[in-house]
Amino acid sequence: MDDGADLVSTIHNDYQELIPDILGGTEETTTGVIRLRAMAADGALKFPVVAVNDAKTKNMFDNRYGTGQSTLDGIIRATDILLAGKVFVVAGYGWCGRGLALRARGMGADVIVTEVDSVKALEARMDGFRVMPMEAAAEEGDLFCTVTGNIHVLRKEHFERMKDGAILSNSGHFDVEIDIPALAALTEGVRKDVRPFVDEYTVAGKRIYVLAEGRLVNLAAAEGHPASVMDMSFATQALACEWMARQEPRLTPAVYDVTNELENGVASLKLASMGIQIDALTDEQQKYLADWRHGT
Amino acid sequence: MDDGADLVSTIHNDYQELIPDILGGTEETTTGVIRLRAMAADGALKFPVVAVNDAKTKNMFDNRYGTGQSTLDGIIRATDILLAGKVFVVAGYGWCGRGLALRARGMGADVIVTEVDSVKALEARMDGFRVMPMEAAAEEGDLFCTVTGNIHVLRKEHFERMKDGAILSNSGHFDVEIDIPALAALTEGVRKDVRPFVDEYTVAGKRIYVLAEGRLVNLAAAEGHPASVMDMSFATQALACEWMARQEPRLTPAVYDVTNELENGVASLKLASMGIQIDALTDEQQKYLADWRHGT
Amino acid sequence: MDDGADLVSTIHNDYQELIPDILGGTEETTTGVIRLRAMAADGALKFPVVAVNDAKTKNMFDNRYGTGQSTLDGIIRATDILLAGKVFVVAGYGWCGRGLALRARGMGADVIVTEVDSVKALEARMDGFRVMPMEAAAEEGDLFCTVTGNIHVLRKEHFERMKDGAILSNSGHFDVEIDIPALAALTEGVRKDVRPFVDEYTVAGKRIYVLAEGRLVNLAAAEGHPASVMDMSFATQALACEWMARQEPRLTPAVYDVTNELENGVASLKLASMGIQIDALTDEQQKYLADWRHGT
Amino acid sequence: MDDGADLVSTIHNDYQELIPDILGGTEETTTGVIRLRAMAADGALKFPVVAVNDAKTKNMFDNRYGTGQSTLDGIIRATDILLAGKVFVVAGYGWCGRGLALRARGMGADVIVTEVDSVKALEARMDGFRVMPMEAAAEEGDLFCTVTGNIHVLRKEHFERMKDGAILSNSGHFDVEIDIPALAALTEGVRKDVRPFVDEYTVAGKRIYVLAEGRLVNLAAAEGHPASVMDMSFATQALACEWMARQEPRLTPAVYDVTNELENGVASLKLASMGIQIDALTDEQQKYLADWRHGT
Repeated sequence: MDDGADLVSTIHNDYQELIPDILGGTEETTTGVIRLRAMAADGALKFPVVAVNDAKTKNMFDNRYGTGQSTLDGIIRATDILLAGKVFVVAGYGWCGRGLALRARGMGADVIVTEVDSVKALEARMDGFRVMPMEAAAEEGDLFCTVTGNIHVLRKEHFERMKDGAILSNSGHFDVEIDIPALAALTEGVRKDVRPFVDEYTVAGKRIYVLAEGRLVNLAAAEGHPASVMDMSFATQALACEWMARQEPRLTPAVYDVTNELENGVASLKLASMGIQIDALTDEQQKYLADWRHGT
Repeated sequence: MDDGADLVSTIHNDYQELIPDILGGTEETTTGVIRLRAMAADGALKFPVVAVNDAKTKNMFDNRYGTGQSTLDGIIRATDILLAGKVFVVAGYGWCGRGLALRARGMGADVIVTEVDSVKALEARMDGFRVMPMEAAAEEGDLFCTVTGNIHVLRKEHFERMKDGAILSNSGHFDVEIDIPALAALTEGVRKDVRPFVDEYTVAGKRIYVLAEGRLVNLAAAEGHPASVMDMSFATQALACEWMARQEPRLTPAVYDVTNELENGVASLKLASMGIQIDALTDEQQKYLADWRHGT
Repeated sequence: MDDGADLVSTIHNDYQELIPDILGGTEETTTGVIRLRAMAADGALKFPVVAVNDAKTKNMFDNRYGTGQSTLDGIIRATDILLAGKVFVVAGYGWCGRGLALRARGMGADVIVTEVDSVKALEARMDGFRVMPMEAAAEEGDLFCTVTGNIHVLRKEHFERMKDGAILSNSGHFDVEIDIPALAALTEGVRKDVRPFVDEYTVAGKRIYVLAEGRLVNLAAAEGHPASVMDMSFATQALACEWMARQEPRLTPAVYDVTNELENGVASLKLASMGIQIDALTDEQQKYLADWRHGT
Repeated sequence: MDDGADLVSTIHNDYQELIPDILGGTEETTTGVIRLRAMAADGALKFPVVAVNDAKTKNMFDNRYGTGQSTLDGIIRATDILLAGKVFVVAGYGWCGRGLALRARGMGADVIVTEVDSVKALEARMDGFRVMPMEAAAEEGDLFCTVTGNIHVLRKEHFERMKDGAILSNSGHFDVEIDIPALAALTEGVRKDVRPFVDEYTVAGKRIYVLAEGRLVNLAAAEGHPASVMDMSFATQALACEWMARQEPRLTPAVYDVTNELENGVASLKLASMGIQIDALTDEQQKYLADWRHGT
């Protein structure tokens, strides 16, 4: 879930003059971090940034559990469709995609995953999902949701193969994952807002429904991620700012990872807020882990 | 699943003279890699080693899906107990632990996870498992399985709190995760092999069953990991050896990660063997990912 | 999900004069059928009724899959709470309750079931849910939802044990499953509509949230059951009316079950609408099933 | 899981003379009950029988949870195959089939269900499984298991479509669900016992593996149902015998259902043995359920 690239571009275009005074920033989104790393590689990054998105306390929780629930929430509010027994196609098996696939299965859907990364594709398969190219999935899906951070994941050759009544949505980054202009070029007619946030395109006599104009469906048609998971992302962000401010000397322009100490601190606070206690290593155990001489 | 530390110690103790001629090695187990890194930090590592265990094509698959299934297989063969409706306590939520917790739930158990790492504990909770200290879990569990790679995870204070009929097993590394000597010291009597691989200890009038003497239950009471998941680990190992042999100049003594190219190659081969095809990035998509100027 | 008893009472009170001309009726709700059977037992039922609720094509689908999804939908819209990692207490393990428990687990919750029926309680346990009396569950739950068709399932002794922040809702029948007057009598203050459909009661310093004033949360805060599952109930109802009208002689006043033929017809139509084909028995198989002489 | 028909036939053929002295019997299997009802319809049943199989405390638990676990146990012991990521075809969605489908999914398989009953097929679909005719499933399956109680569920036209390496097993009733003679007629060669309980047939160059010669795989290759679920079936059987013996006058020859009181008694005993307490209806609730006048 992401509109980070907007922020990155805005920073780049509009705030050049202010940059010398900026101590640093944090970036909350996958797409944003990808772009910041590309900027760093190009020498275009002018101040240090902490990749909060890449923290486990952010992406493993917010991206997975937050996107999983809120995306289904947005789709259900927009369509009021029963997910049980439907073929639900998830494009992308990153943290967002795996959260979404897991929750869609949890609601009774038959889930297909598409991927471009062979390791992720294999993991999806071992998790019990069907895995196939989008051209094949296009013919089977009742619902499709893109969560890739890339462009034109659903495009002309896919629209042409879809079933009557297919429902398309995006929960990845902004409105380019579904190639809406290509769909508009194919269509014989569009009926806007057949329900709020639902546009109906007719392609070769078949109806294809696009939710929220291909924008992030959980933000457009629902309330985005629940506060009870965003709290972890925001805590990580706030503490990353503090960490940055405390560094002596000042950090040089680059993309920095969140420290393990900071991650463990956020997770411990969250567990405490949930009333959950956990074990601690005993002295004997700490010594055992550190000492390679044990074990014969 | 691991007896790697044995190997590491053997290498250290017995093969000192041969070391100058060794091109390098690969390490397949979590415990082994922990120890090799400790050896490297101590300057005790005499040749390069590739940490095959840490490859995604190893730990995400072999440790998770392999250990998950084979551990339950070992427990069921040893005890013939119905898992549905039982309280199953998993100590450790690394790759092995999460595979085991997932599969135990898949068999209908009510799963409790114990952890010492706050991020992993939180992840277990968000995955729907109960999370608590072992002292509390000890009172509830019908079955316990340690998958931590550490020592004395189940110990005196836990045995004393267990219910009559509790079943203890280990699928982590060798026979130190359950403190068997402490149990033997508490016991009023032991009946060996009440079923094959099952010893019955009586503690304060309650029966506690230990499987396979606390050794790896999937190796002792079942057949270890299925070949259809070990293939990935072995392919990663073989290709890591080839990679090592091809390096010019020779690698210096250190612990090396498996390269992304090698991982993707193994995963692609595995997908092909399963008859699964996936998508490839289009030129437009590759360009989009690389270019941070997009996105407004 | 049910407001059938309303209908039954209305029929009883207001339409006495019309009854001689009524050919018959159908009843769509669990509570309604319970009451109609009680009326029949009292000799108070004046015309024949088909218990559409008890048809497999109704209760196994509408009650289970419809209530499961729509109840979570109502709760999420009202509260925007993340379900992953929360303790979700489901009171009642009938078709509605098992649908709700299954879907709550599918969203990552740790689910507790309460029951008064020992067979259903045992089934819930074997399905992997925790089962306990409501007095114990009251202390653990983050969310509670009643789906029993009974009165005062959540009451004074439960409110007193709840945690700060507990969220109460009902998806069973009308607003008596949660004893709101008892809660109001305990409270030190009520804040109405802290979010739409959410009232905050303070009891001994703890906040307890009641959704939709204890009315059916899926109807009040969401859109009720999706059309794609109600279609089966309505088809069963329409065809039951036709069946009733075709009976010669007229049916006598009693509660009638939907016939197997009618159920199979509805299910076959639904499968066809989903593009799903199934097997048919071969002649050999039909003969085998009918003939008890086979099998040695 | 069933070899009841054998028993029924044996009774019919060999014990005619003893029948006048038989007080009655109980029948534990689905197939047995089907045949007993057919015998009753033909006037061939000579003494009363209680259909223990149809008791909820038997079929909902033993058939579902027992068969689910023990069938996978038998398949894994025979083949040592990893289930994660495999296509697992379950023929039949009765209690045995739904238990097996649920557990196979719980082990990470991609599950296809085949059925001849439209209501059951629809339920399987709404539970998230793929549903299709066996002719289509035959082309996709890595593993097949029949749990139908019928004959020749896997037959010539299916064998011809299977993939190289397909694994066939039966957990329904005796060795007629897979048409082994038809497979033998197709084959170019058989290798017996390539592993214990595994025969390899070659058909048009493809290898097809049959487990346990098509006999009940959980009995042949594992230990049958765990005692901790059979206890319920046996308790139901024992108490049904007592009930039968207490009837005055003696029951006439017919098939009788287990009473609700008896079922509730067995379930209550089982819950107590698991340390689980449940709620009881309050007086107010009992009155509410019985009285149709409530409800506005």
